[in-house]
Amino acid sequence: MKKLTGSRLMVGIPNICADILYVSRFKAADPVVFLQHGRDKYLVVSRMETGRARAANPALKILTPDELGLDRKRRWQVSHWAAALLKKTGVGKVDVAGTFPLGVARELEKQGLRVRLAQEELCPERVVKTAGEIVHIRHAQRAAVKALHGACALLEQARVDARGVLREGRQVLTSERVRQVINRILLDENCSGGEPIVAGGPLSANPHWIGHGPLKAGEPIVMDIFPQSLETGYWGDLTRTVVKGAPSPALVRMYQAVKKAQAEALASVRAGVRGVSIHQGVIDRFTELGFESSVTKGVPEGFIHGTGHGVGLEIHEAPSLGFGGAILRVGQVVTIEPGLYYAEVGGIRIEDTVVVTREGFEFLATCPKQLTIR
Amino acid sequence: MKKLTGSRLMVGIPNICADILYVSRFKAADPVVFLQHGRDKYLVVSRMETGRARAANPALKILTPDELGLDRKRRWQVSHWAAALLKKTGVGKVDVAGTFPLGVARELEKQGLRVRLAQEELCPERVVKTAGEIVHIRHAQRAAVKALHGACALLEQARVDARGVLREGRQVLTSERVRQVINRILLDENCSGGEPIVAGGPLSANPHWIGHGPLKAGEPIVMDIFPQSLETGYWGDLTRTVVKGAPSPALVRMYQAVKKAQAEALASVRAGVRGVSIHQGVIDRFTELGFESSVTKGVPEGFIHGTGHGVGLEIHEAPSLGFGGAILRVGQVVTIEPGLYYAEVGGIRIEDTVVVTREGFEFLATCPKQLTIR
Repeated sequence: MKKLTGSRLMVGIPNICADILYVSRFKAADPVVFLQHGRDKYLVVSRMETGRARAANPALKILTPDELGLDRKRRWQVSHWAAALLKKTGVGKVDVAGTFPLGVARELEKQGLRVRLAQEELCPERVVKTAGEIVHIRHAQRAAVKALHGACALLEQARVDARGVLREGRQVLTSERVRQVINRILLDENCSGGEPIVAGGPLSANPHWIGHGPLKAGEPIVMDIFPQSLETGYWGDLTRTVVKGAPSPALVRMYQAVKKAQAEALASVRAGVRGVSIHQGVIDRFTELGFESSVTKGVPEGFIHGTGHGVGLEIHEAPSLGFGGAILRVGQVVTIEPGLYYAEVGGIRIEDTVVVTREGFEFLATCPKQLTIR
Repeated sequence: MKKLTGSRLMVGIPNICADILYVSRFKAADPVVFLQHGRDKYLVVSRMETGRARAANPALKILTPDELGLDRKRRWQVSHWAAALLKKTGVGKVDVAGTFPLGVARELEKQGLRVRLAQEELCPERVVKTAGEIVHIRHAQRAAVKALHGACALLEQARVDARGVLREGRQVLTSERVRQVINRILLDENCSGGEPIVAGGPLSANPHWIGHGPLKAGEPIVMDIFPQSLETGYWGDLTRTVVKGAPSPALVRMYQAVKKAQAEALASVRAGVRGVSIHQGVIDRFTELGFESSVTKGVPEGFIHGTGHGVGLEIHEAPSLGFGGAILRVGQVVTIEPGLYYAEVGGIRIEDTVVVTREGFEFLATCPKQLTIR
C-alpha cells in the first residue's frame, strides 16, 4: 500500500462521501471537515454534533467552528472551517481527492494554503477490506440472497394465465410487486434496497432498466439486488436471471453461456491477476460461444458492460474488472457479473460478490443458479 | 430569479448530486457530465446508458465518450468527458457549483478551459418548487404522517411493566422495533426511511441521536421521520415527541413551550419574511418562557439548532431558517422545527414541512400534536 507522505483533507457529508465515512466512522447528513496530519485525525462538526462525533470515534480530535475562532459570518461555511483548521494545526499543504469541492479549494488557495490533488486514491486503504468490513458486506450480501429467495418463491407460487401473464392469486404479478417483496425482506435484515432491478421481457436488454409492469412466462426476469446496511453503510450486490415456465432454446443457450463465463471468471479470480485479463477472458469466451457484441442502430448488444467492480461503502468502487482493471489483491471485495443483452430477447446476467484470496476467492454468500422456475 | 448568463457544467452521480438529478431527470448510480449552454442541454453517459437517458428526458442531447472521440485511455475518465464535450460544443468558459470536483476543474484548466465558481447557487431554480415537485414532496410527507401514526399505535398498544419499560406482548419495545414499523410503512408508500430517529429518555437531548434500546414510560420519545421517495428522490420531514403514560410537569412545560414556539413560527411564515427573523422569534420566545440556551461542560443545551431548512431533492437544502436565513419566497418548501434539549430531561421537537405562500403557508400533510399517549 502506497503511503501518503502529506496530510489529507476531506470536506463533505459523511453519509454521501464514502471516504469521509470510512476515515471518521461518523454518520451524518450535514457537512464536516476531516484532516489527517501524521497520526492526528481532526473532525470539525457543528457544536450540536460534538457528542455524537465523540461517541462514534474516540480517536478523533473533535473541533467546532467556535473553537476554531470563526466569527458569525464565517461560522456557517465549511470552506472557512477547513481553512481555520489548517491554520490552527499549522498544516500549509494538503492532499485532496479528485472529488474535493472546488469551492473549498479556491478559498484555501486564497488564504495561501496549498491544495495538492492526490495522484492516486486519497484513501488507498479502502480498496482492501478488513475482517470487520467483510462481516458488514457479508451481512448485506446474505440479505440479498434472502430477498432473492423470497422473490423466487413468489414467482414459483404464481400461476400463468391464458395470455401468459403471471398472477398472484387474481392480481397480475408486476415488477413493482416483486420489488416490494424484495425490499420488505431487505428491511427485515436492516438494509435499504433502493430500487432493485426486476426487469422482465425484451426491455431487460437494458442492464440498468429497473423494470415495470406485468411479468410474463417464458421471458427472462433479471433480478439485481443491491442492499445497503442501514447500520453500517456497506453494500451487497447479487443478480440472478430466471424464467417462469419454459424458456426458448435461444434463451437457454444464452443462459448457459453466461453461466459458463461467470464460472470461468470466478475460477480466474485470485490475488495477482489483472482485472482487465479476467474481463478479456469473458469477452473471448462469449465470442467463442457465438455471442457477438456490436452496436445496432445506436443500441449496444451482446456483452456491454464490465465484468465487475469493487463493493464496500460504495456500490461501485475500486477495483474495476473492466478495461481499466488493475492487479487484484487479497481482501478486495468484487462482483463477477457477466451478462448478455439482445434487444429482441432481453438480458441475462448472473452476479456474485466475492472476496479475493491468495489462492482464489470466497463467496460472501451462496445462492443457487437456476434459470427455470416451474 | 437571477439568471446565469454563462454555461453551467455539472459532473457527478445523479443519485447523489441533487443538482444533476434536477436538471437531467436521469437517475443513475454512475457519473455523468451535464452541460447547459443557452437552451441546449447535453448529457454525457456511458454507451450502455444511452437508452435510459433518452427515455428519462427527451429534451437532453445525449452523447457518449465514443461520440466525443475519446480514445481507450481517456474513455473512462469523466474529466475527459467534460473537456471533450466543451470542445465539441465550442464552450470555453463554464460556471460550476462550489461542490464541483476539483480533479475535473484542474483537467479542464489544463486544457485551456475556464472554470468559474458560481457566486450563488448554480441551480437557483431549485429553491422554488414547481407544482409537480410539491406533489412529490407531499407524497413523502404523507408517508411520514402514516408512519408516525403506525408508531403511535404501537406505543398506544404497548403496556408498561413493573419497571416502567414498554412491552409489546412479552417483548420489550425498543427504538429499533419502532424504527422497523416506521420503515415498513414508509416502504409500503414506496419510500426509503433511512434511519428514522426514535430517541427515548434523556439521551434524546442529542437532536441527531437515532435512539437505541428499551423505551420507557414517562420519558420523551422523539420521532423524526424523513422518507425519500424511491421513485422521485424527493424527501419529506416530520417530527413529533410523545410520552407514554404520565409526563412530569417539567416535560409538559417544555412541550407547551415548543408547541407554542412552533405555532408562532408557522404563523410568521410568508413570502417576504426573512428566515433569520423567524429563527430569532423562536429564540426570543424560548427565552421569554424561561428556557435558556447555554453550553454546560461542552454540551449545548436549550434551543441548539436552526428553526428549519428547505426540503426537496435533498433533505437539508436552501433556504435556511437559521442565522443565515434569507427572504422566503412563494413556493419554497421548508421545515419549521423548534426544539428544546436538556441533558437531565431529554429532548422535545415538533416539526412540520410547509409550502410558503403569499399570505402564509400550507401544510404538506397534517398530523396531530399531542404529547401524551395513554
